Amino acid sequence: MNRDIEIAQQATLQDIGAIAAKLGVPEGSLERYGHHKAKLPLSLIDAEKARQSNLILVTAISPTPAGEGKTTVSIGLSQGLQKIGKKTVVVLREPSLGPVFGIKGGAAGGGQSQVLPMEDINLHFTGDFSAIEKAHNLLAALIDNNIQSKQGNLGIDPRTVLWKRVMDMNDRALRQVVVGLGGTGNGLPRETGFDITAASEIMAILCLCENRTDLKTRLGNIFIGFTYDRKPVYARDLGAQGAMAALLKDAIKPNLVQALEGVPAILHGGPFANIAQGTNSVMATRMGLSLADYAVTEAGFGADLGAEKFLDIKCQSAGLSPKAAVLVATIRALKYHGGVSLDDLKNPDPEAVRKGIPNLEKHLENLQQFGLPVVVAINRFVYDSEEELATVEAACAEKGVKVARSDGWANGGEGTRALAEAVVELTENGNTRFKPLYEWNMPVKEKIKTIATTIYGAADVAYSREAERDLRRIRKLELEGLPVCIAKTQKSLSDDPKLTGRPEGFTLHIRGIEIAAGAGFLVPLSGNMMRMPGLPASPAALNIDIDDEGVISGLF
Amino acid sequence: MNRDIEIAQQATLQDIGAIAAKLGVPEGSLERYGHHKAKLPLSLIDAEKARQSNLILVTAISPTPAGEGKTTVSIGLSQGLQKIGKKTVVVLREPSLGPVFGIKGGAAGGGQSQVLPMEDINLHFTGDFSAIEKAHNLLAALIDNNIQSKQGNLGIDPRTVLWKRVMDMNDRALRQVVVGLGGTGNGLPRETGFDITAASEIMAILCLCENRTDLKTRLGNIFIGFTYDRKPVYARDLGAQGAMAALLKDAIKPNLVQALEGVPAILHGGPFANIAQGTNSVMATRMGLSLADYAVTEAGFGADLGAEKFLDIKCQSAGLSPKAAVLVATIRALKYHGGVSLDDLKNPDPEAVRKGIPNLEKHLENLQQFGLPVVVAINRFVYDSEEELATVEAACAEKGVKVARSDGWANGGEGTRALAEAVVELTENGNTRFKPLYEWNMPVKEKIKTIATTIYGAADVAYSREAERDLRRIRKLELEGLPVCIAKTQKSLSDDPKLTGRPEGFTLHIRGIEIAAGAGFLVPLSGNMMRMPGLPASPAALNIDIDDEGVISGLF
Repeated sequence: MNRDIEIAQQATLQDIGAIAAKLGVPEGSLERYGHHKAKLPLSLIDAEKARQSNLILVTAISPTPAGEGKTTVSIGLSQGLQKIGKKTVVVLREPSLGPVFGIKGGAAGGGQSQVLPMEDINLHFTGDFSAIEKAHNLLAALIDNNIQSKQGNLGIDPRTVLWKRVMDMNDRALRQVVVGLGGTGNGLPRETGFDITAASEIMAILCLCENRTDLKTRLGNIFIGFTYDRKPVYARDLGAQGAMAALLKDAIKPNLVQALEGVPAILHGGPFANIAQGTNSVMATRMGLSLADYAVTEAGFGADLGAEKFLDIKCQSAGLSPKAAVLVATIRALKYHGGVSLDDLKNPDPEAVRKGIPNLEKHLENLQQFGLPVVVAINRFVYDSEEELATVEAACAEKGVKVARSDGWANGGEGTRALAEAVVELTENGNTRFKPLYEWNMPVKEKIKTIATTIYGAADVAYSREAERDLRRIRKLELEGLPVCIAKTQKSLSDDPKLTGRPEGFTLHIRGIEIAAGAGFLVPLSGNMMRMPGLPASPAALNIDIDDEGVISGLF
Repeated sequence: MNRDIEIAQQATLQDIGAIAAKLGVPEGSLERYGHHKAKLPLSLIDAEKARQSNLILVTAISPTPAGEGKTTVSIGLSQGLQKIGKKTVVVLREPSLGPVFGIKGGAAGGGQSQVLPMEDINLHFTGDFSAIEKAHNLLAALIDNNIQSKQGNLGIDPRTVLWKRVMDMNDRALRQVVVGLGGTGNGLPRETGFDITAASEIMAILCLCENRTDLKTRLGNIFIGFTYDRKPVYARDLGAQGAMAALLKDAIKPNLVQALEGVPAILHGGPFANIAQGTNSVMATRMGLSLADYAVTEAGFGADLGAEKFLDIKCQSAGLSPKAAVLVATIRALKYHGGVSLDDLKNPDPEAVRKGIPNLEKHLENLQQFGLPVVVAINRFVYDSEEELATVEAACAEKGVKVARSDGWANGGEGTRALAEAVVELTENGNTRFKPLYEWNMPVKEKIKTIATTIYGAADVAYSREAERDLRRIRKLELEGLPVCIAKTQKSLSDDPKLTGRPEGFTLHIRGIEIAAGAGFLVPLSGNMMRMPGLPASPAALNIDIDDEGVISGLF
């Protein structure tokens, strides 16, 4: 069996100009980055056309640690749609660089459903992450510089500064640091830390903004901390937003690449799915809808996290209206929810699959609550048994829900033809009545409770003293009207990673509520969120190499 | 008078394909980054052709803090050479991003002698600095990870780790930090710091390497520190070089842009001129020589630093042989060396100019010691008086040295026609007998003494206890055969920034000797070297903005 990188390197890529031509984008509008990548100018966005096209959301049941292959299904589905004659584009997040050197595993699909050139996409790509990193760290430098300088000093209390620095690298030693050591010339010593770049609020901002003006406004709205006399300080108070936006001059433009079978793929932004909205940019989604009839996109983690945030935050913010949802399930994840340990997931066990179905059912019900027609896609693995597959199909039939085996990994678009046909049928029969779960102007606690009880299945929500203090602060800052982007484990519908299946009657514990005033949401925290991964004992970096011709090996 | 950015934005740029065509590079060989930037594949380097072309080095007298405009003269000269019919390319360093947000001042030339597109070049350009930053920080993460992990643990003594992290940002708070705080999960707490990316040894490595294989060897040779039982640890012991080289996959390729008058410009690498070799990459210089008949390049700071390192390290390492040198002098710098304070440099003062001439003379003699024919270029400023200019011309005539007024800032190539003609005459009359100052295999102290006495004018060299300890370490590691890259103030020929003019009889103090085993040189330190600048009280960032069309303002 070929590795992903071998399949990718054996593929014959089309010139990016030919891919653009499929979307009606003329060569002159392309900003090429080599022969197989390009940036698309924002002027190609056509709001009217975007409204008429079909947005398909790919989401998943509660995943195992390895993930259930949403990206692979999304790419596969777009290839399937192309096979049945639909003008299609797949719109995805850009992968993060740091994890590439940690544990093997690409973020550009897999097998016969990849986006290419995979080495570029997984390394620096077109520099968007790097630009976001620089914009983020410029603000950090301006904050410490303001604390240090007599001129223009805002009186920022360094103990209240919430803005950390970022680096796109798995580097646990940077999680908690003391900066400003070495004497008066080096600033004021204070404790802070680094997050991975994908966790930057600027990443979330870039992905929610509408245009450069909106970008600047949101950058200016970033909440930094307080002055010594307890006045809030925003990035605009430091005059930072213009320079930050200048650093994002090109990062704001969506990137065009191609899937293995030549489907145009738009990759843009990659915000965390636990503490941010976890989907590609609004501009990229609109671009996809402007240039094709079907735009397939995905939201991070399970539907309780990714889809909920996609629908309540991104779609509400940008006025997007998906036509159908694809709920990805894998036999192994269902067995996991049916009680099988991680080590035994490859062994056939139809009974465990049956026991895991309630997790699938809950996610199905959740998506239906949003008024979306759903098709379940069983992302196939080589060790799935026919009986296991039939078990899922029977369960779906019982619920009256469409189901299709998705075999894009092994067979590309041919393997997702049935899924593509199901998606088209759902889309074209016009039964979509998309509505978000809550109104943004509800009180914060009500918004949280609505999601917790309706989506997660919680009985109640409990707030720590810190969370209550944060709520008072949010009220004082008049930010209660922001939507909530709940940070919760993806491993369970509840906030306890050990509760697999369909937990009920639990209490969701909120230990604090962060303010992402620039991105435009609040982040209620349940459990500990890792924002800076570490490297494993034997990092993937040690296997990566490049030869004198520039051919990379060891990347997945 | 127009600002640089206004001139740049009013310019009509040629498509980069047309610029490449001037060099005989076909469209298919170009890796475009938008319409006005491209990467050039290393396969375009032609060693034989490179040997036949003319390499012109632009260097300067001891500069004032504002710099004497070497880049502007280099670009202007290349435009002048084009005007008189020579197939010319200018080969320069890439500017660093960090300082853009500190004190105003471009690093892409000025006035009518700029390289374009200046906003791109001064911001992320083609991502080379970012790639170097990532490669550098990956090694740092692997070091801390090795200290943390039981598996594969090399027994690195964290107190001996010399490898810091880098960020292309003026951020003084990062100069000295403690990392690894927060408990056992976050690594071992230790003191370290951040340098600006241009100061990274990887930048120096990229600029001295010959190809990808050589790059990997040099990356593997990076000296990190010692184990608890005092064994040296190199990057290769961590197995880091393959992944680092993969991160530099595209950064290794030189970048093509254009000067205002359409002269092809190759920009690649930007190592510090105080602690590293301070010139563009060997590959870029060879590329320029392969594709044109005249390749104009520059070396950082004054000739005592930049030119010496260019000639003794880069040229010796790569077998390059310059045909002529241009020594840039400004009236204001000569006045400064003649005793005028920085605030009064705009006032006409021919007598002060006369008093400053010995600095010019010393640099002239130094270049002549390398066997290079020299022309003095007086980089003109609007407030220079005719009498002041004539003073310099008379002094040069007395020494029998060619001199030309260089007016590229105001008049582009037309303003450097005389300079270009002088350069061609020196080059074509075949009197060049280039020879480096010392042999690499001399003992370290002899190499240092040769430079100190012959180039700087020192009477002697004194070593601190630390420097002597470092010398013993270098001997133990068998690295005595490396050339020396002396870190010294650029403000004076001596190591005392206050000694302007032509100091004599001083002692050069070496307080330590760093090992850059990957780059392939030793760094004797005289005085304190700033490797992480800070932002000023009123940072340039506050004036930078971008409008909804993507047009940037406030950048210089």
